[in-house]
Amino acid sequence: MEVGIGDDCAVIRLSDDLKLLVTTDLLVENVHFLRNATYPEMLGRKSLAVNLSDIAAMGGTPHSFYISVAIPENLEEDFLDRFRDGMAEIASEYEVDLLGGDTTASPEHLFINITLLGWAQKGKYLPRNGAKPGDIIQVSGPLGNSAGGLYTRLNQINSTVYEPLRNAHDNPAPRIEAGKALAEINAVSSMIDISDGIAQDLGHICSESRVGAVVNIERIPVDDLLSRLAVESNISVYPWVLAGGEDYELCWTVHPDSSDEALDAAARAGAPSPRSIGRIVEHGEVQFCLNGRRYDLPQKGWDHFRRTGRNDREGN
Amino acid sequence: MEVGIGDDCAVIRLSDDLKLLVTTDLLVENVHFLRNATYPEMLGRKSLAVNLSDIAAMGGTPHSFYISVAIPENLEEDFLDRFRDGMAEIASEYEVDLLGGDTTASPEHLFINITLLGWAQKGKYLPRNGAKPGDIIQVSGPLGNSAGGLYTRLNQINSTVYEPLRNAHDNPAPRIEAGKALAEINAVSSMIDISDGIAQDLGHICSESRVGAVVNIERIPVDDLLSRLAVESNISVYPWVLAGGEDYELCWTVHPDSSDEALDAAARAGAPSPRSIGRIVEHGEVQFCLNGRRYDLPQKGWDHFRRTGRNDREGN
Repeated sequence: MEVGIGDDCAVIRLSDDLKLLVTTDLLVENVHFLRNATYPEMLGRKSLAVNLSDIAAMGGTPHSFYISVAIPENLEEDFLDRFRDGMAEIASEYEVDLLGGDTTASPEHLFINITLLGWAQKGKYLPRNGAKPGDIIQVSGPLGNSAGGLYTRLNQINSTVYEPLRNAHDNPAPRIEAGKALAEINAVSSMIDISDGIAQDLGHICSESRVGAVVNIERIPVDDLLSRLAVESNISVYPWVLAGGEDYELCWTVHPDSSDEALDAAARAGAPSPRSIGRIVEHGEVQFCLNGRRYDLPQKGWDHFRRTGRNDREGN
Repeated sequence: MEVGIGDDCAVIRLSDDLKLLVTTDLLVENVHFLRNATYPEMLGRKSLAVNLSDIAAMGGTPHSFYISVAIPENLEEDFLDRFRDGMAEIASEYEVDLLGGDTTASPEHLFINITLLGWAQKGKYLPRNGAKPGDIIQVSGPLGNSAGGLYTRLNQINSTVYEPLRNAHDNPAPRIEAGKALAEINAVSSMIDISDGIAQDLGHICSESRVGAVVNIERIPVDDLLSRLAVESNISVYPWVLAGGEDYELCWTVHPDSSDEALDAAARAGAPSPRSIGRIVEHGEVQFCLNGRRYDLPQKGWDHFRRTGRNDREGN
């Protein structure tokens, strides 16, 4: 193994040119989703999407997946069919095959475990631990939409105007092509997918690379619709943007000489709004600046049901 | 993929010489085990052992595993540590590494999913569907011990004399080396591990190879200790032997010209009592003969809690 527990995927070296990526995610009813507040098709899509995003975060190509399901007796009859339909749809979009699994009874709740395998192209992949002082920090698209979408739902703001935010929450798009394009650029030094919010996920890059980071909040791409929701709700948009999580955009670091090349490559590969948002520094943790001043995230300022449990995660 | 859902493992062709094997098993509290009637160390061992046995059944070499655990709040403090100790022990014995996983909360029960990867040596593996009429059916060791061990426990027959049977149930030995040795023999045509009892598992070989089988019960290796337990309990030993399950010995088919070679290879690779037990025929299902007469397994004659749910299984 080259990279073990702790990165987005485990990496197994098969040859110089071929490396296997393995990622696994467990979704638990009443921890990661509420059965009666979830469209089974969307749950099927998202279950696979979060694993695809882990492969994207390494710059890999997904190959096949394996699903274990523990089914409670009282599960609605069509739930699993609809779940499978949603999963089959995204599997087809990303050209991955279901090759195996295990199905069993559950005494009470629905449990879904997915293991996804992928390949690193030409043996190249992007770990979390390669960021160097001076590197530019970039992201692939807008942050906070997923959190905003969830906020509208929890606060019964039902206006269809905010449907795109809810869609960002329910149906994230793993950035496989952008990840692969970035892995081709030698000067890109580390990458992660933003599942827990940029504060926490960039923090993983910093701690594993033993560096610090300074992020200029005003450079982070934020959708106008999200800003509008914040204004209408009379709250700050920044906790969503920095700590909202579940956006599944990519965050990577790149040598300053290749920073434009990386943005261009990401854009050509479909990243919605690639942007440079800050810089890696020698020491410290992740620091945010807003209009030249230090910005501190409110402690416990923002939390919600269904962070997909990724805060509890160990490993990949 | 070469072999998909339905065999012991999924098989992914990486090159002519390298094929990846993938197997996954989900263990659920109160379905596959009772938390307070289980030694966590033994559960850890067995959780990995059943996956190792799936790799053995393809003639493969295990490589690494990935474990997802959903942990209920009321789990005894040292349960997971002890579980991990048991798992680490067998992982070390079989030289497989834990490379990843996911840990999350569970609303109530303990759920453990293991995905194990392995390789097929020189690209050779043994599927379930290659048995041909005339082939000899062989097994690697005694059958029924696991069922007998469980019987002593369920019926509170606490004599230490029967400890080896309980050990067969708690601590099965995956036949990795025997499986690899058999995969080297071209004349070996199919293989499976006996997880649900020879009746059911040989039935899988027959249905997937579109052949029938005739098994001579008196040729199946049966430990004296198991026979003694049956006599003392005044019941027939055969339901344990034929339908008991969880022995995790191997069952394979081989061209008659190479039948001795296969037995020798299995014995040299540590199979405890390799034996020819019958023959593949053109049609029909699995038929058992005892002393020249047809023997029918009692319908529902034998069942017990904790068949490790493998009857509910789909896929690998």
